[in-house]
Amino acid sequence: MDVINIRDKFDLFTEHWRPKVIASLNGQEVKLVKVQGVFPWHHHDDADEMFMVWRGRFRIEFRDRVADMGPGDLVVVPRGVEHRTAADEEAEILVFEPAEVLNTGNIVDETFTAPRGAKI
Amino acid sequence: MDVINIRDKFDLFTEHWRPKVIASLNGQEVKLVKVQGVFPWHHHDDADEMFMVWRGRFRIEFRDRVADMGPGDLVVVPRGVEHRTAADEEAEILVFEPAEVLNTGNIVDETFTAPRGAKI
Repeated sequence: MDVINIRDKFDLFTEHWRPKVIASLNGQEVKLVKVQGVFPWHHHDDADEMFMVWRGRFRIEFRDRVADMGPGDLVVVPRGVEHRTAADEEAEILVFEPAEVLNTGNIVDETFTAPRGAKI
Repeated sequence: MDVINIRDKFDLFTEHWRPKVIASLNGQEVKLVKVQGVFPWHHHDDADEMFMVWRGRFRIEFRDRVADMGPGDLVVVPRGVEHRTAADEEAEILVFEPAEVLNTGNIVDETFTAPRGAKI
């Protein structure tokens, strides 16, 4: 029941595309991730994902459209929907999803697949 | 997969202690609530609750301590833990919890118990 400050947590790491778990509840995790560049196309068979922008500009690209987002914007990507995330300049993102979701979903990518459950 | 802006959603209502669902995923809901004053003591038998401060100062009071929070702070209240929320001046809060949780948990209060699942 400690108070967790999101800004302080973001300041603890610098690497991109490596989600850090800051809170867990009801089988779900709250993660922070810094992003820059373009993530691989993927989907999650059994997990809806919510992305909330904390700082910067962020895109979620679907096969037929793009969600263009800024601070205070959120989008839910339903399970099974192919997507990729992108940011031209560094952005800070909160992610809400079930515990133990793999960040690259149905694919494994040498660069982008990150360890599950890394806490900060 | 629409973009939801948290500020815009907060601007759609004015009443206190009436959570509004803005997103649903994995059986959980993301709610906005404006608060001012002191909420009744209660607990939730089967739901962990996360509170994130969007604007203002906010307290979560436990029987043995108080979590004093400002913008960008979050706290997870584990299931079963008695608590009450409070704010001296109006504050704007995001809540993450399982769908269909009653805001007053194990009690019913004529003033504070709010309809479940109200969307905005």
